[in-house]
Amino acid sequence: MRVGLLGCGNVGAALAVLVDEQRDVVARRTGLSFEVASVAVRDLSVDRGVPLPAEVFTTDAAAVVSDPDIDVVVEVMGGIEPARTLIVAALGNGKPVVTANKELLAVHGAELYSIAESAGVDLLFEAAVAGAIPIMRPLRESFAGEPVTRVMGIVNGTTNFILTKMSGEGASYDDALAEAQGLGYAEADPTADVEGHDAGAKIAIIATLAFGTEVVADDVYLEGISGVTTDDIEAAAHLGYCIKLLAVADRRGDEIGVRVHPTLVPNDHPLAAVNDSFNAVFVEGDAVGEVMLYGRGAGGRPTASAVFGDLIDAAGNSARGHGAPIGSLERARISPIDDLETAYYLALDVDDEPGVLAGVAAVFGAHRVSIRSMEQAGQGGEARITFITHRARERDMQATLDDLGGLDAVRSVGSVLRALGG
Amino acid sequence: MRVGLLGCGNVGAALAVLVDEQRDVVARRTGLSFEVASVAVRDLSVDRGVPLPAEVFTTDAAAVVSDPDIDVVVEVMGGIEPARTLIVAALGNGKPVVTANKELLAVHGAELYSIAESAGVDLLFEAAVAGAIPIMRPLRESFAGEPVTRVMGIVNGTTNFILTKMSGEGASYDDALAEAQGLGYAEADPTADVEGHDAGAKIAIIATLAFGTEVVADDVYLEGISGVTTDDIEAAAHLGYCIKLLAVADRRGDEIGVRVHPTLVPNDHPLAAVNDSFNAVFVEGDAVGEVMLYGRGAGGRPTASAVFGDLIDAAGNSARGHGAPIGSLERARISPIDDLETAYYLALDVDDEPGVLAGVAAVFGAHRVSIRSMEQAGQGGEARITFITHRARERDMQATLDDLGGLDAVRSVGSVLRALGG
Repeated sequence: MRVGLLGCGNVGAALAVLVDEQRDVVARRTGLSFEVASVAVRDLSVDRGVPLPAEVFTTDAAAVVSDPDIDVVVEVMGGIEPARTLIVAALGNGKPVVTANKELLAVHGAELYSIAESAGVDLLFEAAVAGAIPIMRPLRESFAGEPVTRVMGIVNGTTNFILTKMSGEGASYDDALAEAQGLGYAEADPTADVEGHDAGAKIAIIATLAFGTEVVADDVYLEGISGVTTDDIEAAAHLGYCIKLLAVADRRGDEIGVRVHPTLVPNDHPLAAVNDSFNAVFVEGDAVGEVMLYGRGAGGRPTASAVFGDLIDAAGNSARGHGAPIGSLERARISPIDDLETAYYLALDVDDEPGVLAGVAAVFGAHRVSIRSMEQAGQGGEARITFITHRARERDMQATLDDLGGLDAVRSVGSVLRALGG
Repeated sequence: MRVGLLGCGNVGAALAVLVDEQRDVVARRTGLSFEVASVAVRDLSVDRGVPLPAEVFTTDAAAVVSDPDIDVVVEVMGGIEPARTLIVAALGNGKPVVTANKELLAVHGAELYSIAESAGVDLLFEAAVAGAIPIMRPLRESFAGEPVTRVMGIVNGTTNFILTKMSGEGASYDDALAEAQGLGYAEADPTADVEGHDAGAKIAIIATLAFGTEVVADDVYLEGISGVTTDDIEAAAHLGYCIKLLAVADRRGDEIGVRVHPTLVPNDHPLAAVNDSFNAVFVEGDAVGEVMLYGRGAGGRPTASAVFGDLIDAAGNSARGHGAPIGSLERARISPIDDLETAYYLALDVDDEPGVLAGVAAVFGAHRVSIRSMEQAGQGGEARITFITHRARERDMQATLDDLGGLDAVRSVGSVLRALGG
């Protein structure tokens, strides 16, 4: 099996090494022998540190995807273009494609799945979401007959690292971010991670597979973690929760809700134990109950492992003369965030004087938002009250917040975070 | 797709319901429509509570597997015979088979995989190990190119429930077992669960898939949990560990080690958070790093979900004219337990008098077993010392125990448990 590799950064280089190391084992177990036969890169002068002869490198990516000697194409260059054009060309030439490109799939996934089906070849992308964790294959195959109701993921390692540091060491958001940048976990411009864009792209891909209907990145409601404070984390801990950036997709009737936001997770929930830069995806279904898949969400070697698994699968299917396509998908009906029903955490800074709580409670009650627990910290002139509500509608909660902001005794409405359970 | 079902207990009945409920969704997403067309049972008079007409039931299982109208066979009757003969016959008739039968696969798996390959049809068995958790498919496909080094599982829900009760509520082993029996988690004769036989069968199947080499139930070294005391659990907790019944398969050179035993798991390890009757399988590989798959290990609906996923996969492959076989496997070379290298926990009851510890430490030292930490509880005439060792050879540890038993000041050697880490 002659592999054409588009891109040779961390993942591509790690894949070339892995293919070389595992060649004999894989040949013995699958009957397929893999050879990285062509590698498209932008700059031929960079030493990639891979066990490949210089002559396999080329700057002509279009030639790789049209080369009749190439049996299967791996795209690890990232970005929308030229990746999209190259993948379409490869599929059109009857070559199965393995990609790790979440940006592309979160926008053009359904189009590409449909092209792959028409071409009768595989388009596999386990590595695009949560790196080494097998999640795409279980969603496509293991849960093909499962009435999946909700999928929740910690799918961004950078933000999970930051929140773990803030929680475990009491670090401020800024200090934790700086540490993540120092370790290379966060970019100099961390926006894509900390504002939830990266997680949003991933949950769009997950939702598409889990519910068999097209969900794109723009469908996803996004809130990042830059507003989460150490006060919030301490208050949440006091109430028995940790705070995680969750990407959530759920089925509400014939609509799909998709969102990314910081979330209070009960300490006894399996997602609460997912720390540092680890990722996990938690699947709930009527029959299967609860399943969680946990592992490394990024890194060259772990991601290359997922790519290699797909490569073996695609090559095997190709040798047997067919793919296992996702097929054509209808566009999902997206449930607006206003229709969300969840529990909420809310921090209010108030004047500590008689009657304040009664006034606050009246506002909650007027909007049918029911309080499950409250705690007051501080005394004297100024106090902070934290609330956990029972499940309420997002639109009712937002109306509650508007009215609370208008109360004289409320100095400020602090963080408002959604909470699991309730 | 006409399904022939062998057995209609919890799993079979739940599968019939799930196939009925999900028929339209699955047809829309896969193009395949499933119908349970024939069900072999022992007793036709039992009401199975399934949405199937009476005429599909038969007591003639052999007729089901030879019926030319049956496209795919699901075996959920359990036990070695007649399940084995029926599966061989179904494969011989060119029908793909889905089975949840761990006893059978742990003994005759390699033979059946080979027969399936010769017949060119699928033999799938996701439900045979850890119920609803996708573990067989990831091992077969996602990790096909991964240098897996170790797989560790909590794969018996009964024992995990008992250990969780002992740990969380300080219940004695006998009380926790009685509660498990009252809830239907444990059989009246709990031997298969508590002595590790069930977990042993599962780790044999896992090891076979993870390392691509035949491992059978008899290869597995077994120690159950009936000797674990609340004292051990408290001492372990004090040292930062919980106690879990782990089933472990690891690669040592060209040998495979397979064993089931109670194990001290550090509290910050993901397996430590797997409680009650939940299962999890933790996979370690050179490239993938650490992956954990978590969920319900048993129960009719969760197990039926796994069977249905396999059924859709097998039927799709069959419609496309091929299976995805495991192939013929060589017999594994099994590493004897004496060659194990691990850390140990050890409790000694000793006379509390000067020089005792020096004598004990000298015995450890003579066998090159190095002590990482020790704690003494109790004072006066009698004391209990608990040790955690650095990694040592099993044979050296056993020799140490023999010699410790011969010391006058050692009243008794209490529990000896293996520990992760070190």
